[in-house]
Amino acid sequence: MHLPDWLARRAALHPERPALICAGQTWSFASLHRDADLVALCLRELGVQPGDRVALLARNSPGYAAILHATPRCGMVLVPLNTRLSEQELAWQLADCRPRLLIYDEAYAAQVASLPVRSVALENLGMARSPTFDSPTSPTSSSDQQIDLAAPHTLIYTSGTTGQPKGALLTAGNHWWSATASMLNLGLNEADRWLAVLPLFHVGGLSILMRGAIYGMPVVLHERFEPTAVLQALVEERVTLVSLVAVMLQRLLDHDQAGVLPASLRCVLLGGGPAPRPLLEACAARDLPVAQTYGMTETASQVATLAPADALRKLGSAGQPLLPMELRVEAPTGEVGEICVRGPMVTPGYYNRPEATAKALRDGWLHTGDLGYLDEEGYLYIVDRRSDLIISGGENIYPAEVEAALLAHPAVAEAGVVGMPDATWGEVPVAFVVAREGSTPEVNALLEHCRASLAGYKIPRRITLVNELPRTAAGKLRRNLLRTML
Amino acid sequence: MHLPDWLARRAALHPERPALICAGQTWSFASLHRDADLVALCLRELGVQPGDRVALLARNSPGYAAILHATPRCGMVLVPLNTRLSEQELAWQLADCRPRLLIYDEAYAAQVASLPVRSVALENLGMARSPTFDSPTSPTSSSDQQIDLAAPHTLIYTSGTTGQPKGALLTAGNHWWSATASMLNLGLNEADRWLAVLPLFHVGGLSILMRGAIYGMPVVLHERFEPTAVLQALVEERVTLVSLVAVMLQRLLDHDQAGVLPASLRCVLLGGGPAPRPLLEACAARDLPVAQTYGMTETASQVATLAPADALRKLGSAGQPLLPMELRVEAPTGEVGEICVRGPMVTPGYYNRPEATAKALRDGWLHTGDLGYLDEEGYLYIVDRRSDLIISGGENIYPAEVEAALLAHPAVAEAGVVGMPDATWGEVPVAFVVAREGSTPEVNALLEHCRASLAGYKIPRRITLVNELPRTAAGKLRRNLLRTML
Repeated sequence: MHLPDWLARRAALHPERPALICAGQTWSFASLHRDADLVALCLRELGVQPGDRVALLARNSPGYAAILHATPRCGMVLVPLNTRLSEQELAWQLADCRPRLLIYDEAYAAQVASLPVRSVALENLGMARSPTFDSPTSPTSSSDQQIDLAAPHTLIYTSGTTGQPKGALLTAGNHWWSATASMLNLGLNEADRWLAVLPLFHVGGLSILMRGAIYGMPVVLHERFEPTAVLQALVEERVTLVSLVAVMLQRLLDHDQAGVLPASLRCVLLGGGPAPRPLLEACAARDLPVAQTYGMTETASQVATLAPADALRKLGSAGQPLLPMELRVEAPTGEVGEICVRGPMVTPGYYNRPEATAKALRDGWLHTGDLGYLDEEGYLYIVDRRSDLIISGGENIYPAEVEAALLAHPAVAEAGVVGMPDATWGEVPVAFVVAREGSTPEVNALLEHCRASLAGYKIPRRITLVNELPRTAAGKLRRNLLRTML
Repeated sequence: MHLPDWLARRAALHPERPALICAGQTWSFASLHRDADLVALCLRELGVQPGDRVALLARNSPGYAAILHATPRCGMVLVPLNTRLSEQELAWQLADCRPRLLIYDEAYAAQVASLPVRSVALENLGMARSPTFDSPTSPTSSSDQQIDLAAPHTLIYTSGTTGQPKGALLTAGNHWWSATASMLNLGLNEADRWLAVLPLFHVGGLSILMRGAIYGMPVVLHERFEPTAVLQALVEERVTLVSLVAVMLQRLLDHDQAGVLPASLRCVLLGGGPAPRPLLEACAARDLPVAQTYGMTETASQVATLAPADALRKLGSAGQPLLPMELRVEAPTGEVGEICVRGPMVTPGYYNRPEATAKALRDGWLHTGDLGYLDEEGYLYIVDRRSDLIISGGENIYPAEVEAALLAHPAVAEAGVVGMPDATWGEVPVAFVVAREGSTPEVNALLEHCRASLAGYKIPRRITLVNELPRTAAGKLRRNLLRTML
């Protein structure tokens, strides 16, 4: 099914309405639409063909948004790269998706120089550096632009149980359905403005830009989370919606001694794992409506969301699935089982990974690997994230990935990584290591080794040398026992 | 594509929230969901099979809503009948769609008795007479219910140029996309309540019930438009949205001498043809936000809607097409041509009318037969409704249908019908008649003859005997010249 290009239609309907507010400047819908057209034109001139992957290594910026919206216009598949990855991790992902081009912003120029891929600076894509105030493109030409809902739109890497990242494909339709499902849940007010401080290379940040264009809603974009700037935006930019992870929300409350959080803020969408009770209670005491959400890259963001009114009554729950997402737990009500989801927001599969796709997607149901249960009212509780996933400040860390890095060191025979509760980050990774016979690895050397191949947030906070790791008879690592050794 | 049954999901998510408010009683989502289940069960027991048509002849009532939502649950295709039709017109439509069953409410018992179709009283469908307050059905069972978006959901008769009504099929998906498109245009607030006073047998009324279930929004339902009751509902039921036709809006303003129209009313969706300037100016003077809309049965309601802020600036315009509807005029910008629309809200076709379907739908584009133009900003102006359609108080009247009734009288040789401007109804039908040689038809006898076969609103307000009708060389009636004879 084809739909009209949503950004083009918004530009035709209300060209002057703010689409993006960033660093004191405002891009209207007409202006953002024009920038997206310029980027698409430029990429086509650079040889980008329909179906080509185009990687993007950049900080949050209006240019990022223009590139995202240019995606269907030149038929490319955008691959937003995590800017925190090590050079080795980046090289691996680029080798996997073989992009026609890598777009980077100046902050990463040095890093990109050593990567084996053709690259272009974001600054050279033809966009004006400031918003343009020309009259919009004629609505007749805009309304001709189409978006194929079945076409792959985005390819976002998500680490897997084996430690090898997989590129989850998201179609334009996945994004559309996710945006409308979120609207059916949270509503859409005339005054709505969504603040994006999460990185745009994650689906949690990127989906805010999709919603902005589909709803015709202004997005306030920050380069990164900075509590003072967020507080200021909430007040001065009259932000009504914001997506955060728990560690950010806590820092926000810590900074808000003056109690300036305005009443216009109608919902904090809180992702990245369950929030601690004291945090939710502090929010309730300030009348701050918090909606806990459960989502993942493979579902183009939210799967289930807890209504703010239920925040304390259903503490720890991720709420009910969004309409039209279907959710089932492979166990009777109240008992723990694997969480499976189905619906038009679910990925068609992993890029060039037929086996992983077949394993994850069966009869249209995505087997998330996460464990949870449904209470008698149908509210979802997550018991254990998939594959012992560690969520640290909203970033996903797969133990297997960190273990693989440690095992690559010549002095390491075995490695086991688990998450340790942390007051600030929710969890941090810690490692247990068995030395290779005759070797005596130094912790500092191991950390140094990890730093060469892993993003900073994945580096174990602690490495403990042990004589052996707890394993099943079949030799499988027993992480639950590992956790008791913390 | 299948989606979860929306009403079932709303009942699971917020069972206690009001779904329907009617005549001082409130049906919660759990209660409405249960009634829909009871109706579906009852209809299956009455032998209704998937694909069967089930006709419904009833006034606006909560039972009507339960039957509508039971539709996908027993796989039937609901045929809402216009209660104002003559017995002859009803019999024609029933013969055309051959329903398994006709559901009627007590007001039409006598009329139904003479119709050649198996019938059942709405009161006997198993619904409680008052809302039930039991605990909701368990969410697990509810979440299993599915709606096939491609399945025909509703069959609504719309008169055609030949005078023979055609049954426009609307799929569940047509309704879903229409509801989400309307939401993308008007937004959705926590406090929203939509007042339905239009008849539910028209898509303008019926679509409000669909939105209510899909959005999880309370619908305030009136049996008919009655200005005092509407004013009272706007204030006491805190209605925020209402769908009206111009004649109703005018009567509402006439009744609102005390100026009680509350600020909570955030939009009047005004359908059924362009509103006169004095009416729009009176609304502007009272800060009453009016959104002119253009829609039709074949598109499951709205096609284009004018934002209230543009009401006077773009006087007479129907606004821009709703996202994701596509609209084109088969003429250059500013020039008049046929209005064509495409999108997921468009009917798959007319029931058992392959030729009419092929003529109307080409390459996915619905050729509406309406004439209009787009201004340089992409705003649609309707110049002439299809086939000289007369719109009288929101009801469509096809001249050909009235002409056919007149021609059936033995004293009539030729008949021509056009709309005459009317301060109250917008337009009323008037007829010009050429007597058969040797006959001298009496006007009163002709009117009596019309009353036997036509709904009251279709009876010509005036019949003028003439010697000949203006025709083209090919013998085609020249209605534009007929209008000058008024």
